[in-house]
Amino acid sequence: MLGSTHGTLTTDFRARVEACGESPRTAVHSSAAPSADDAVPLDVSGRPLHADVPDLDRFFRPESVAVIGASDAEGRPNTGITRQLIAWAERVGARIHPVHPTRPTVFGLTCHASVADLPEQVDLAVLLVADPLPVIEELAETKVKFAVAFASGFAETGDAGAAAQERLGAAVRGSGLRLLGPNTNLNAFEKFREDLDGPAIALITQSGHQGRPVYTLQELGIRLSHWAPTGNEADLETSDFISYFAEQPEVGAIACYVEGLKDGRSFLLAADRAARNGVPVVAVKVGRTETGARMAASHTGKLTGADTVVDAAMRQFGVIRVDGLDELQDTAALLARARKPQADGVVVYSISGGTGAHFSDLATEAGLTLPTLSQAKQDELHQWIPGYLNVANPVDNGGHPVGDWRGRKIIDAILADPEVGVLICPITGPFPPMSDKLAQDLVDAAEQSDKLICVIWGSPVGTEDAYRTTLLGSSRVATFRTFGNCITAVRAYLGHHRFTAGYRSPFEDAPRTPSPSYRKAQALMRPSQQLSEHAAKQLLRAYGIRVPREQLVTSAAAAVRAAGLVGYPVVMKASGPQLGHKTELGLVKIGLTSASQIRDAYRELTDIARYENVPLDGILVCQMVERGVEMVVGVTQDDLFGPTVTVGLGGVLVEVLHDAAVRVPPFGEDQARAMLRELRGHALLEGVRGAPPADVDALVEVVLRIQRMALELGDELSELDINPLMVLPRGQGAVALDALAICR
Amino acid sequence: MLGSTHGTLTTDFRARVEACGESPRTAVHSSAAPSADDAVPLDVSGRPLHADVPDLDRFFRPESVAVIGASDAEGRPNTGITRQLIAWAERVGARIHPVHPTRPTVFGLTCHASVADLPEQVDLAVLLVADPLPVIEELAETKVKFAVAFASGFAETGDAGAAAQERLGAAVRGSGLRLLGPNTNLNAFEKFREDLDGPAIALITQSGHQGRPVYTLQELGIRLSHWAPTGNEADLETSDFISYFAEQPEVGAIACYVEGLKDGRSFLLAADRAARNGVPVVAVKVGRTETGARMAASHTGKLTGADTVVDAAMRQFGVIRVDGLDELQDTAALLARARKPQADGVVVYSISGGTGAHFSDLATEAGLTLPTLSQAKQDELHQWIPGYLNVANPVDNGGHPVGDWRGRKIIDAILADPEVGVLICPITGPFPPMSDKLAQDLVDAAEQSDKLICVIWGSPVGTEDAYRTTLLGSSRVATFRTFGNCITAVRAYLGHHRFTAGYRSPFEDAPRTPSPSYRKAQALMRPSQQLSEHAAKQLLRAYGIRVPREQLVTSAAAAVRAAGLVGYPVVMKASGPQLGHKTELGLVKIGLTSASQIRDAYRELTDIARYENVPLDGILVCQMVERGVEMVVGVTQDDLFGPTVTVGLGGVLVEVLHDAAVRVPPFGEDQARAMLRELRGHALLEGVRGAPPADVDALVEVVLRIQRMALELGDELSELDINPLMVLPRGQGAVALDALAICR
Repeated sequence: MLGSTHGTLTTDFRARVEACGESPRTAVHSSAAPSADDAVPLDVSGRPLHADVPDLDRFFRPESVAVIGASDAEGRPNTGITRQLIAWAERVGARIHPVHPTRPTVFGLTCHASVADLPEQVDLAVLLVADPLPVIEELAETKVKFAVAFASGFAETGDAGAAAQERLGAAVRGSGLRLLGPNTNLNAFEKFREDLDGPAIALITQSGHQGRPVYTLQELGIRLSHWAPTGNEADLETSDFISYFAEQPEVGAIACYVEGLKDGRSFLLAADRAARNGVPVVAVKVGRTETGARMAASHTGKLTGADTVVDAAMRQFGVIRVDGLDELQDTAALLARARKPQADGVVVYSISGGTGAHFSDLATEAGLTLPTLSQAKQDELHQWIPGYLNVANPVDNGGHPVGDWRGRKIIDAILADPEVGVLICPITGPFPPMSDKLAQDLVDAAEQSDKLICVIWGSPVGTEDAYRTTLLGSSRVATFRTFGNCITAVRAYLGHHRFTAGYRSPFEDAPRTPSPSYRKAQALMRPSQQLSEHAAKQLLRAYGIRVPREQLVTSAAAAVRAAGLVGYPVVMKASGPQLGHKTELGLVKIGLTSASQIRDAYRELTDIARYENVPLDGILVCQMVERGVEMVVGVTQDDLFGPTVTVGLGGVLVEVLHDAAVRVPPFGEDQARAMLRELRGHALLEGVRGAPPADVDALVEVVLRIQRMALELGDELSELDINPLMVLPRGQGAVALDALAICR
Repeated sequence: MLGSTHGTLTTDFRARVEACGESPRTAVHSSAAPSADDAVPLDVSGRPLHADVPDLDRFFRPESVAVIGASDAEGRPNTGITRQLIAWAERVGARIHPVHPTRPTVFGLTCHASVADLPEQVDLAVLLVADPLPVIEELAETKVKFAVAFASGFAETGDAGAAAQERLGAAVRGSGLRLLGPNTNLNAFEKFREDLDGPAIALITQSGHQGRPVYTLQELGIRLSHWAPTGNEADLETSDFISYFAEQPEVGAIACYVEGLKDGRSFLLAADRAARNGVPVVAVKVGRTETGARMAASHTGKLTGADTVVDAAMRQFGVIRVDGLDELQDTAALLARARKPQADGVVVYSISGGTGAHFSDLATEAGLTLPTLSQAKQDELHQWIPGYLNVANPVDNGGHPVGDWRGRKIIDAILADPEVGVLICPITGPFPPMSDKLAQDLVDAAEQSDKLICVIWGSPVGTEDAYRTTLLGSSRVATFRTFGNCITAVRAYLGHHRFTAGYRSPFEDAPRTPSPSYRKAQALMRPSQQLSEHAAKQLLRAYGIRVPREQLVTSAAAAVRAAGLVGYPVVMKASGPQLGHKTELGLVKIGLTSASQIRDAYRELTDIARYENVPLDGILVCQMVERGVEMVVGVTQDDLFGPTVTVGLGGVLVEVLHDAAVRVPPFGEDQARAMLRELRGHALLEGVRGAPPADVDALVEVVLRIQRMALELGDELSELDINPLMVLPRGQGAVALDALAICR
């Protein structure tokens, strides 16, 4: 099939495409930053602060389509595709023009010898030719808006293919022509159900097969509006479709299956647009493990990126990451169709105390809020529910009231509670006399309420009428098959609305011009060198980050003088470029209280340095800072996103427990504070064992200054590590006791 | 319904029972230890080392049944139950005898006025009377084997009900009669499909409604052999049914829905039996959160137990705990039917590279092993799969080969690999021309192989023939609907067989008689007191746990002499009963190096003690132990399981990160080592930042000695806490620097 023919169309391909209209997706990794013409504002690191939304209307709804390489000859792979394209063109009401050098007609349609001979300027050209480059070049000259290249044999096959793909990208760059592919498939031309209304899911996939389950949701009554198979992304990429879909009124949620991202920044800008528009993006992103990353790379040629960074970037911009395709389906379907919640409160309503106990247990563990219903509300419910049953939340109706007029009253009474935003009814064991009526009552109530009603249909069979007809027949009730997926989706739903309500785009505030600190910092940089501790600390000072009083000395006498100025007790450390692991080498002496101790220490440190043969720029005599919480703050470069900022618990904790949080700039103070909350050991900052609370504001300030540094120095700074940053008691600030900086 | 009528049978009840044959379960918590007659061997703590398996054959397959309170009068709740019981008796081939004081016949059967008038000695008596006690007392006199009491209004309603329930339990105790209930339901008398063969699932539930989905699995071709609704467990409890089912040849797996356990030890003994017999037990256990625990308590009257302890106990004895009922179904079904694995290797086989990448990512993250197939095997597969596709594992066939004779060859070739124990084929997007053939090939291959084949049917629809007919029609292929549940079940399957293969019952080695240490320890105990640090350390010494050289002194001069004997530098601490938080109070002085420092310290400590008004038994002058890893080892009492042993990382780590592992005695060295591996910070024991590896063997020895102490002192010891236990470098042992002991 296309995904595998190395530029030739074999019969193998037909079987696949005519079979299920998709092929194993492969794509390309491009390390190029998004083409930012002068119009696009840039941040201080030279990254774009804005991405235009490509106008894809004519791609999804063209008025005229050319099929280049069209065929109706039996046994030719292109024949099947041509047939499907003609059918699709009819559905979307597009005029279709076959193009083939020798055929007079294709399926009865007049066939044109070449692009030049086309009777009109088409919106979309679908290329079924093995080598699309010449045609793409020709099209780029015309006013054709879109081209789709099915042919494979590009980046997924190695360097030669990657180069060929680069040429494709170059051919369209700057021209008005936008290219989908190469190595894409028929998913963009699928048939969608027209009889479903309400907000729809728009689907973006890097593997047609993996997108199929979401597409199939239409058979359960979930509306789908678009499917973008992004192919190798020589030009158009996942992010372009996220941006476009986020602007479409009919799109309620965007569902993505992502193996690798073409460019980190364009993804952030697209996610930012979706967040601003309040359009939820739900994504499966492969690459949680090395294996997964390797597999994805071998399948798509894309880098998955460091997973912790991808994960953080998604959270920063409100992208909801899920693991399973079932979670992708259930979460996207709920977010697409459910209205804005009026409250965060979740009520669990069931015919069994056991079900209530079990569901509440899982829901609470997942962080959902189950408010205890007011006594008045409980009294109201007890009009219809026997008094010995618990109706505080979960509400256990004991089963019987479901069978008669009381059933609907109970549901309406729960929905009327202002604290309640979501009613969840697990129907664990279906039994028609009860569950049919219960399902109908829930559907009827949902029709007349703005509040979300979720049902879990617990039967493993799933052919029951109440499920197939009543529940799936309603676009107002969200129906699940498992407690787990319901909880995942509801948490995402409440979280999404909380996030967008408080969202302010960090790109608004991203620095565009260097700060005064930048000039000072530049002067300290030493290309492809690790700076000495002393130099690295000066770098920090340039950005207003406090370091201990210290002096760099080159004689014992000077050390004693320095100690007098710094103030006893002092710490003495060897300082030099390329010098790490000072403690292990014995190149740090702490708590020195007298001139004689200092002279001894000076001798010992210089002896060790000589013995270990490490070049020194001198000995640091530093003020000793003891009482505080040791943290680590750092900058590292990510393949996909560029500089990232990390904060973690210092000392043994970060080494053993890797208790650290990461963010991708730009981010604001809220995210800096969120980083600290993510730390498992964050309680240390609040003060434990009688220790005073730490100066969290100062810590946050350091994180933000480090972000500024990371942005301004950009790629010049390969790595920065403050370890430890001693965070003093509240009001006393934070001091960087040691620092490591590596220049590119 | 019964679960709610406080001893009366209302029409409300009929609707429920006749409707779905179940009522919201409620049950009782009994703190009484299992009745261990003299025959049962006890461990040193007085807990039984063995539990007899109740012979429940005649309960599930009685030859004769009496229905006490039988009715055929219209409108009477008992009429519905009587009808169902008659139908059930016919199915199991039992003679049925209605009992009612006034009715001559019931449904045409001769009705007997009282138990005394029964024509034969029945195996089972079902009590439909509001007050079962008199009948139970009467039955206990006879040779009737089993009684079932439906009536509710017992422990779930409060103290009076609990007392009534105690009387029921007392009435049968010692007699040959075993009682199920009170407050149980019709689930024990359900209809089971007879046309299914192979190993079956036996189901135990504390909520009929929550058991319904597992029961319904029969409609998907999964065989069910028993359903035990344990009710309030006045006599027969969940553990009795686990033990019995573990002995039944037709039972392949035991599935439990548990809200609370009646007794911890009987659960462990039952799980031990299942582990010895290699019968997997899969359980949903409510109580992960406070909310869940509260709900379960209000629903069942049972304690859920501290969840971390329940969780640990289950892992110790190989009980597989899952969260969702869907996981319970899928995991129990797989474990019941799959044969012993021949290898741990998992191969993922799919028609899409994307599916392979995604599934491998999730499977690897979950800890499954995906071995890279040998080059020879890959070459073999490439006979049928195009060479550009990845077949190293995951195996991507590109789709096409599935359509013809190659499909089966590929599957057989993978199964023939000795490294492969499980083949998993995710059929993410169904498409009949491909997936029908693929499903059939997998089913056929499974019939001829001992290896496990799993299929994930990814379509959310689930009405497709390949799924309903082909896959569900096979008892050899395990079919799932989600990647997640397949991974959970396969991990449980491989884990179960690994566990049972290496399982040795800890009850074999549990101590039965006190050690010499016990007498020494007893002498130190002070009822309802907290021991002083000095006394607590003597307790440790009694069990051969090392403490620092130290002396308790009551004068400055004595302190100086003590320091000379202990050796400088020394630590000085106030020692007294009821004395905690010494550090916070400033009652610890470390690193004292001279007589004068010691005199000053003595004065200061006694001053503070006087000022803080804490009674002292003296000042401890201790050897100073610096270099090592700080750990915490302790004993706490659990409501359900009695004494438990905890080990964690010391200092701030345990307080802030709660990085600790717990075990329920008895457990062996293997579990003690497993505890350390569970610690997030276990790397600290291997040595970080150039620190030497710690003496793990000594640490393990301390844990085992503490277990011994916990068992021997039993309830006398409310709490013990060694904090810190300083674990010295390998070969140098471990020293308890401080200890807290509270006697009951």
